[in-house]
Amino acid sequence: MKKLINPFFRWENGTFITIDQTRLPFYESILKLYYPDEYFDAIKKLKVRGAPAIGIVAAYGVLSTVYRYKKFTKAKTESLKTIELLKTARPTAVNIFNILEELKKLIENFDSNDYNHFKDSIENFCKKRLEYEVYTCEKISIYGSELIKNGMNILTHCNTGMLATPGIGTALGIIFKAFIMGKRFHLFIPETRPLLQGSRLTVYEAEKLKLPYTLVTDNMRGFLFSKNMIDITFVGADRIALNGDTANKIGTYESAILSYVHKKPFFVVAPTTTFDKKLSSGKGIKVEERKTDEIISILNKRISIAKNTFNPAFDITPSKYITGIITEKGIIKPKSECIKKILK
Amino acid sequence: MKKLINPFFRWENGTFITIDQTRLPFYESILKLYYPDEYFDAIKKLKVRGAPAIGIVAAYGVLSTVYRYKKFTKAKTESLKTIELLKTARPTAVNIFNILEELKKLIENFDSNDYNHFKDSIENFCKKRLEYEVYTCEKISIYGSELIKNGMNILTHCNTGMLATPGIGTALGIIFKAFIMGKRFHLFIPETRPLLQGSRLTVYEAEKLKLPYTLVTDNMRGFLFSKNMIDITFVGADRIALNGDTANKIGTYESAILSYVHKKPFFVVAPTTTFDKKLSSGKGIKVEERKTDEIISILNKRISIAKNTFNPAFDITPSKYITGIITEKGIIKPKSECIKKILK
Repeated sequence: MKKLINPFFRWENGTFITIDQTRLPFYESILKLYYPDEYFDAIKKLKVRGAPAIGIVAAYGVLSTVYRYKKFTKAKTESLKTIELLKTARPTAVNIFNILEELKKLIENFDSNDYNHFKDSIENFCKKRLEYEVYTCEKISIYGSELIKNGMNILTHCNTGMLATPGIGTALGIIFKAFIMGKRFHLFIPETRPLLQGSRLTVYEAEKLKLPYTLVTDNMRGFLFSKNMIDITFVGADRIALNGDTANKIGTYESAILSYVHKKPFFVVAPTTTFDKKLSSGKGIKVEERKTDEIISILNKRISIAKNTFNPAFDITPSKYITGIITEKGIIKPKSECIKKILK
Repeated sequence: MKKLINPFFRWENGTFITIDQTRLPFYESILKLYYPDEYFDAIKKLKVRGAPAIGIVAAYGVLSTVYRYKKFTKAKTESLKTIELLKTARPTAVNIFNILEELKKLIENFDSNDYNHFKDSIENFCKKRLEYEVYTCEKISIYGSELIKNGMNILTHCNTGMLATPGIGTALGIIFKAFIMGKRFHLFIPETRPLLQGSRLTVYEAEKLKLPYTLVTDNMRGFLFSKNMIDITFVGADRIALNGDTANKIGTYESAILSYVHKKPFFVVAPTTTFDKKLSSGKGIKVEERKTDEIISILNKRISIAKNTFNPAFDITPSKYITGIITEKGIIKPKSECIKKILK
């Protein structure tokens, strides 16, 4: 069986190397991140995106800072500053907070003054976490691909593949895995306005793999369901509360509602790092509101004269509309007792 | 009370004068239609759109032909040809078929060889039908505006205002009427991909009237409903079956499902000319599939490398999700017995 290797995330001696996702698919523009502001800008402007990916990239942002200052005390204070900066880049995904919090603890409690030892510890942390993301994607894809049968029509949302994680992806990872296992099915990709992660990024990945797909606009999902053209839906997650309520890219909730009304399964796919242990329900999730530009223009082309827009980047799907959550520890029901069990 | 006059549709001595809606809102480009091909092209390419509007414009297309040939026999054969041509321009809206069928009967059964008499008859027919559309919009808006209360948040879809009808509009007509009556409410406008009739045209009309609105992308409707930000929905219709099933712009069905799940009223707004007397249910409605271009580009800017797209221009909302249908003859339940009664 062909093995998929993620080509988009790489650490090279002080610098994190990735691809500028805002320029895809027309330009494959390499992004080299070194200064904290560059990391902040890349995450804020969605040059790097996807909940698992931005967590990892943020961690390496801290490591870049450690690399830059060759003395322990300076490296420590500056890396703590980088942590505080990067925490403010995007508010909704939990992974970036969690990983930065862990790093903060590691740095604050570091019990030596040796710079090299310090640097190696942070580097080791980052490397392990990146490897763990690759591992969780693989495990998730093994569990999830069981659900895909030959001949199925599958719906996804946004982009959750090798551009969204350092591994093979979450929701798309499952689909990729099933595909390289030889299963034959069809993928429907909603374009995912405003930033078109579906039509720009998911189509880009599907084309590279020669995976059969059809691109539609977001408002065609209802039509597809009404014509019985969707059998199962897989979406990613940016933050999952302890009761299973899930924040994910705007429009996800609509796919959940359509699945519910048409009696089709709807799966959330995420590593356990996406759960927010402090959050009992989705009501507490802060939804990022982004700028007007994204609504009245597309890839810098102005499309509307509207002065008043609203641009929530995520929505919250209540757990009652979720068939199951696919994690690296197995597929679970979106219920508090099941979630608490796997988080132990 | 301020009276709204539709400025977009005018007949002037052989030529129909309207505005090229594909160029709005950035260019207010006047369109003068004379030859049958020009009418066909305008309707096909959505330079003129909206079920009531294209019916009227098609009728005037026939009149243009009558104007061009100054002899009865030639005018008769050529106008019948124009009818056959224009019937094929767009398949889903019923108004254009109905009005062209009526004209065909009128022409075939015309009981004189007098050119001027013939021309006057056709012109009279067109004029009456245009006036009737203006009258129905007015009546509809009076019935429908009763449903709008101060402080409401209203959802619409696509464009159903003065660009979609020769009158003040259907769904938007109601909203405009309530607004000029002094009611205060807020309108949410989904952009309506692929052709952005919401963000280009409805925003354009709302701005002209200074009506308070917010533009969102289509996939934000679920979020709005989930946050209790929508109280009532008004949409137009391209074809309504005798059981109330309604074909309308793609994405309409999703607003109906969201209204249903969130227990909010969902109204279809259309003149009785939108009912298809030959159709017992929505299953028989032919949905127009349009070209790939509209999905992979926006206003001529390419946004995706996708090779495979699907582009249905309409969807069908089953009557069970429709609270009521607002017509010029009153507001009715979407049930066969009620529909048959008003069509008598």
